[in-house]
Formats: sequence, C-alpha cells, structure tokens
Amino acid sequence: MSRPPDPRRRTSIQRVTTWRDGVPSDRDDLLIGEEPAQISVAGPDGVPIEVAVTMRTPGHDEELAVGFLVSELLITPSDVVRVSFGDPLHTSQPENHILVHLRTSFDAARIPARTTVATASCGICGKASLDDVARRLGRVEKIARISSAALLQLPDQLRAAQDLFAGTGGLHAAAAVSVAGDGSLSITAVREDVGRHNAVDKLIGEAALRDALPLNATLLLLSGRCSFELVQKGAAAGCAAIACVGAPSSLAVETAERLGICLIGFLREHSFNVYTEQRAVQP
Amino acid sequence: MSRPPDPRRRTSIQRVTTWRDGVPSDRDDLLIGEEPAQISVAGPDGVPIEVAVTMRTPGHDEELAVGFLVSELLITPSDVVRVSFGDPLHTSQPENHILVHLRTSFDAARIPARTTVATASCGICGKASLDDVARRLGRVEKIARISSAALLQLPDQLRAAQDLFAGTGGLHAAAAVSVAGDGSLSITAVREDVGRHNAVDKLIGEAALRDALPLNATLLLLSGRCSFELVQKGAAAGCAAIACVGAPSSLAVETAERLGICLIGFLREHSFNVYTEQRAVQP
Repeated sequence: MSRPPDPRRRTSIQRVTTWRDGVPSDRDDLLIGEEPAQISVAGPDGVPIEVAVTMRTPGHDEELAVGFLVSELLITPSDVVRVSFGDPLHTSQPENHILVHLRTSFDAARIPARTTVATASCGICGKASLDDVARRLGRVEKIARISSAALLQLPDQLRAAQDLFAGTGGLHAAAAVSVAGDGSLSITAVREDVGRHNAVDKLIGEAALRDALPLNATLLLLSGRCSFELVQKGAAAGCAAIACVGAPSSLAVETAERLGICLIGFLREHSFNVYTEQRAVQP
Repeated sequence: MSRPPDPRRRTSIQRVTTWRDGVPSDRDDLLIGEEPAQISVAGPDGVPIEVAVTMRTPGHDEELAVGFLVSELLITPSDVVRVSFGDPLHTSQPENHILVHLRTSFDAARIPARTTVATASCGICGKASLDDVARRLGRVEKIARISSAALLQLPDQLRAAQDLFAGTGGLHAAAAVSVAGDGSLSITAVREDVGRHNAVDKLIGEAALRDALPLNATLLLLSGRCSFELVQKGAAAGCAAIACVGAPSSLAVETAERLGICLIGFLREHSFNVYTEQRAVQP
C-alpha cells in the first residue's frame, strides 16, 4: 500500500572537495535526501486538517503519515480509509503533502502544540505526567525470553539490511525484530530516514497499513540513541522490548520502566546494557 | 545571565545489567538527563504565549529559550528584557517552564505549525521556498580563509571541551569556533544537549544574551550530522561556515549553497569534505 521510494529523491550526487592529509581532490559524494512532508488528515467531509510538518527522507510516505498519527495516538489504524498526495491549498510539491483519509471526523483541538503523546495532558510532560502516558498507552504484553547471543548479532544484521546507510552515512534505521519463544531473533522489516523519529514512524505505519498492530513479541531496534519519544512510539505500537545501538536518555529509561518495556542500550558486537526488565534477557 | 546547570538534572545514575561475551554483571551507569521545556514569550502585558515544547537536557535554559526564538527568527536579541521560570497556569515543574519577557507585544499568529523558519511562508518548505528563506536570512559575511590543518584538529578539541559526553555517550555538542585572519581556529563556546537542535539553540542563545550576534568570522561546529534546520539556525546567527563530524543532508547542502555558507562534512582526524564555498578552505 506504500509507494516505493523514488531513488532520485532518496539520495543525490554532489561534487565535493575531499581533503585528506592536507591534499584536496574533487569527487562525487552521495547525499541523503531531506525534504519536508506535511501530514494532514481529512474526515468524511474531505476537508484537510494539517497535523504536522516533518523533515524526512522521501519514500514510504504513506507509512510515515499513518505511523506518525498512530504512534502519537491521534488515530487508530482502523480509522484509515486511504492515503493520497497533494493539497488543494498548495499546488506545488504534491508529493510532499500527505493526506490520510479517515472514516470519522477529526477534532483539530486534539493536535497539541508539539505533537507527542505526553503533551496531550497539559502542554508539557515530565515525571508528573508519566502516569498519564502509562494510562493512555497501557502496559505492553511482556516478552518472556530474549537470547543474549542473538542480541549481539543484531547490529551486523541491521547494517546488512540497511540499503542506504553504507553509501551516505547520513541515516537512522529502525527495525522490527520478531522474538520467537526460545528467545531467538529475526529482523522482519527495516525503515531508514534522515530523522530518527521518522524511521520509527515508517516502521509502525508499515505494520498499521497491513493491520498487524499491536506488534506483540516484537523488539524495536534503533540504529542510534533512544529518547523518551521513541519509547512512547514503541509502546504505542505494542513493542515490549527496545534495543538501541547508542545511549538511552534518563527519561527513556524511566518511561520504559513505567510501561514494563525491556530497554537495551549500547548494543555492540560483544556487549550491551539492560536498563529495565532485566530478567527478559537470558543466555 | 544563564543559570548554571544542576548536575542532578543533567545526568542520573541507573543500575544496569551489562552483558559482555555472554556474562551478565550489575553496575551503575550514567544516563543523560532529558526533560521537557516549554518555551513561552510575554510582551509588556505579561501574558504568557506558549511557542514550543522541546525535550532537552536541563541546563543553560535561558540560552535555550532565547536561542530558539532568535534562530527561528521569531524575535531579535534586542527584544529580550529578561528570562524567568514558572507558568501561572502550571504550578508544577516551574524549572521546565521558561518565559522570555519581550519589550514589544508578540503576535501569536507568527507561531507556525512547526516552528522553523522555512514554514513561515506556506506551512511547508522545500526547494521552492529556499528563495524565501534566503531573503529572510540574508547572506552571511563570508570567511576569507579557513586552515585545513586547523579543521582536522577540531574533533579532538571538541571532545576535550565536552564535559558530559565522555561519561554518557548520549549527547550532541555544538561549538562556536572563532576564525582568525590567517585561517587558524579556536573554540570559544560549547553547549551539549540530548537534542541536536537544542545544543545549537543554547550556543546561539549564549551569544544573544551577551549581545554578540551576528557571529561574524565564526564557524559552527556540530558533533553529529547536519540537517537543513541546523544550516538555517547557523545562518540566522550569522555563521558563514558550518562543519559537522557526520554527514550533511541534501537540503543542508542546497541551503548552504544558496546562503553562501561554507559547509564541511565528515570531519575526521585525517580528512573532511567541503560541499560548498570550497575556496574558503586553504592549506
């Protein structure tokens, strides 16, 4: 259901001067594409309501829009009728105006100043409102066992599955990793984007569009660091485990703890840290 | 003028299980602090108008708020009377409500759906509206000469100047680098944050609060990648050169070219790429 990415917009060639040990030379460099996307919704009356603008790498844009709306708890997957492109108010760049058509009308008052779950309560979240986040998201269905040996293989498997990173060095990746009963792991979907949140939104949108949410028995794998918002998005998709190659923030750990999510950080070739729900990881 | 960071909120200690080569062991880990900040403005009538909420690492919050407002072209530095904390509508967490008091009244209609310079025109930016961005920002005062040898030393100097990164691995840094007439470079200020944009906003706010904008003959140094928005923020502060340790995006390069900014990427110990204004870099 999601349009395949246009290679000419995902990357571009740029002439650069490379200086190596004091010597300049000219060559072609591959740049990662970055373009704005306006995400709007329309109810049965068809009138677009702008929800957000994000800078993203073009491609999988239907997934991006639906995943964003679902992971921010603004809609549920069953609300979606179809996704179209273009905005009657803006005749240029129809490919950057994504319109999600909904079965029911959308109340524009639900769009917070900054669109993220936690702001829905009072415009600012934090420790005091983590309870509210937990109540809205609910606790996820826990994973009994994640193999420590299988975790160590994920960074290599993610790099192998990333089709753009090797060429540009400019991308974040998010992957859905299926967790079997014996704790073994397998990557089932990967999405890349110049924006860390967008990669996660695309991944969640991919599942939403094939009616596969919640992602039970699924670990969310992140190529970078893990912030509060990414834990929220993972929880909204039903992921009971999140592993990131970089560092988690303090609020990411606190939120994971509150929501019962197993949070793994600094996932490298030989080691990793388990911050919450430590008993899920086993030899 | 900016409150020194509270060490207990910038980082926290978390008990983690580290698995190394299949063996788990418990130890204390340092996490980077992440808390929401609500940025509001008030004119002479004192009534707060919420402009944005951002997840940030506490500390240098006055700089964050002023730098954000200035780099998004929502105010000019001379508009600022003072910065206070707390919001009469939210009695909890006064430290996370930053209020910038302005000499003149602020028109709430100026707050775009997504607060970034480019959205001011039509709600979505992109190639067609780069002209508008260029017109609003103006071209920066070019730098005649940047020493290639001095550039190679910046990553080490930045790491040495970062006080939090070594312990947590979870931070972005932005630095102001003064460029002398002979092309030599010296770091004059560094700010760190869990959010890349916040680190740049803090740096620009630091300069704004001591009335040092525009930052002529200054290179903006970034510990990570460079997106479109960071080029915009740098240009708003007057920086004629931007160097990032990671990759720049396609739109970052295009914007730098349009604004006459020398953009340097993949800055490592022995090499770097110059994407725009190549003649500024000299042996």
